Amino acid sequence: KTYRIAVIPGDGIGKEVVPAAIEVLDQAAHLDGSFQFEWTTFPWGCDYYLETGKMMPDNGIEILKGYDQIFLGAVGMPNLVPDHISLWGLLIKIRREMKQSINVRPAKLLQGLPSPLRKPNDFDLVVVRENSEGEYAESGGRIHSGQDEVAIQNAIFTRKGTERAMRYAFEIAKTRRQHVTSATKSNGITYSMPFWDEVFVQVGKDFKDIGQVSTHIDALAAFFVMKPESFDVIVASNLFGDILTDLGGAIMGSIGIAPAANLNIERQYPSMFEPVHGSAPDIAGQGIANPLGQIWTGKMMLDFLGYHELGTRVLNAIEATLAQGIKTADLGGTSTLRDVTSAVLNHLR
Amino acid sequence: KTYRIAVIPGDGIGKEVVPAAIEVLDQAAHLDGSFQFEWTTFPWGCDYYLETGKMMPDNGIEILKGYDQIFLGAVGMPNLVPDHISLWGLLIKIRREMKQSINVRPAKLLQGLPSPLRKPNDFDLVVVRENSEGEYAESGGRIHSGQDEVAIQNAIFTRKGTERAMRYAFEIAKTRRQHVTSATKSNGITYSMPFWDEVFVQVGKDFKDIGQVSTHIDALAAFFVMKPESFDVIVASNLFGDILTDLGGAIMGSIGIAPAANLNIERQYPSMFEPVHGSAPDIAGQGIANPLGQIWTGKMMLDFLGYHELGTRVLNAIEATLAQGIKTADLGGTSTLRDVTSAVLNHLR
Ligand SMILES: CC(C)[C@H](C(=O)O)[C@@H](O)C(=O)O
Ligand SMILES: CC(C)[C@H](C(=O)O)[C@@H](O)C(=O)O
Repeated sequence: KTYRIAVIPGDGIGKEVVPAAIEVLDQAAHLDGSFQFEWTTFPWGCDYYLETGKMMPDNGIEILKGYDQIFLGAVGMPNLVPDHISLWGLLIKIRREMKQSINVRPAKLLQGLPSPLRKPNDFDLVVVRENSEGEYAESGGRIHSGQDEVAIQNAIFTRKGTERAMRYAFEIAKTRRQHVTSATKSNGITYSMPFWDEVFVQVGKDFKDIGQVSTHIDALAAFFVMKPESFDVIVASNLFGDILTDLGGAIMGSIGIAPAANLNIERQYPSMFEPVHGSAPDIAGQGIANPLGQIWTGKMMLDFLGYHELGTRVLNAIEATLAQGIKTADLGGTSTLRDVTSAVLNHLR
Repeated sequence: KTYRIAVIPGDGIGKEVVPAAIEVLDQAAHLDGSFQFEWTTFPWGCDYYLETGKMMPDNGIEILKGYDQIFLGAVGMPNLVPDHISLWGLLIKIRREMKQSINVRPAKLLQGLPSPLRKPNDFDLVVVRENSEGEYAESGGRIHSGQDEVAIQNAIFTRKGTERAMRYAFEIAKTRRQHVTSATKSNGITYSMPFWDEVFVQVGKDFKDIGQVSTHIDALAAFFVMKPESFDVIVASNLFGDILTDLGGAIMGSIGIAPAANLNIERQYPSMFEPVHGSAPDIAGQGIANPLGQIWTGKMMLDFLGYHELGTRVLNAIEATLAQGIKTADLGGTSTLRDVTSAVLNHLR
């Protein structure tokens, strides 16, 4: 079996960590023996924008639809291209147009990666973020100017979008520790969040064996610091998921290592796998970027393609590399991108 | 000079920690010698609701307007009174009707209070939260039912409200370490947050000597864990401020100790001083509640009344008590509420 993957290295360190992760994924496929990857690289991103005035060609989405999955590095060169152009012209555009309505981001205490928490218990959580609507709705406007100006932002929650994220969270919980926490704020936000809570209670009725609880986002954020081990699956709106997943990266010890999957769970369009970290233009091109976030992101692609055991082996190889002390500078080590990649490849054999 | 303070102990442990904090404040006033407090207690809250069907009398707001400030314990008995009734009928009602449009919440590494962070540098930050509008606007609605249902929540940002919070943040920064961070999310939320950013840039022009930077809320939350010492004053919308201040409590080592001030900075109506923690009905009435959050909240009232030096002495007494190991069970100690209060009184002499 051959999987045709569209590769968008993007900007900055994306161009370095993506090839590293591809090496690891190719080796994983080779180990398995039952499938292979066929990679097609697209040079879209800020350089492309500076040349053409577009982040990707007009038929970019059509082109991507011809592939099984999308493997993306990082997008953004804030000094050269304003964020709203680079993000909405590529990253968010793909998320939306490919109906990647679920964003999955794990956070896990890894051996060899010191958490900034003093006594971290062994946490292993995953945030299921609604990825297509909610607070990110492009809906709103302004009235009046000067001192009278008023800006309105509409957060829009559909039953379908809300329910989809929650069902997916419950399904994942079935394969894990059987518990879902819903991130809410219905004590302060009185239209969207009570709706969110109602849908959670209703969807939860179809998953009676799965533990379920609603927690306000303020307390939830604090609990990520105080007792992350108490969480299994967390389902959150677009904004709350965004905040919680950066916090998840922080308590792991580095946002630079956190992976993410933008899923079209209907498998009608390709899903997109991209690490949480950015393009880090300041350290790009020096061979010192940390490839582990991109490699872990590759593991999530393996999972989504059904190769769970292989995915676990990749994560184990990441952990073994860290435990060995082979780390890039961002993690306090002295190893290069090449050293780290080679170590992961070795451990994966 | 006599300050007439309306006291609302509220529910649960509020009834225990408020009297403790009053003892400390009375002693502080006595030490100063130039003023005294006159306390008038109102038994409003969930018990009152269960008796009368209201969280406070219809003329409650009118009554409170007759006082200089409001000193509040904690509100809520979720098992007996739904949160939307207890909060919106008292806490949020007072915040709104008294135009307490600024919420100030410090977070500071205290000696003797172990932070959950492994190597916390000496952080000392304060969040200025817009407290009257934004994401908490009671504006929105629903359409259709069943699978087609859609909920809309309007976040409403006025120039006046936004600017007020930002100006106040800059003013506070002048008296501190000369730096303001604005919490934004304009890369994802495209109507309210770009407006927020614009106002920040404009207001910032009046404070050219103060450092100023905008940071996305996801990264900001992560930085609270990774480098809280990098912040001085943070200005945030109602929702972002809510999340960041619970995080602030978490990195201090306990939400149970975090203080808050709901300020009417125009001093047209009384301000309200209330700790961040809740009513903790499970441990109420046993004399084991932690009074330090309420006492620190009292310190914020002293500050707002202009007695900064006295306020600092109260905070020092809190810190000395902790450093001595006199702590309630929630902080891992074995002391009672009485022990802790007596220790603070001793250190304040
Ligand atoms: C209880 C709730 C409505 C409130 C808020 O969100 O403002 C609380 O979390 C707080 O921070 O004081
Ligand atoms: C860049 C930004 C729009 C994006 C988001 O908020 O979704 C990012 O923070 C993320 O989490 O992938």
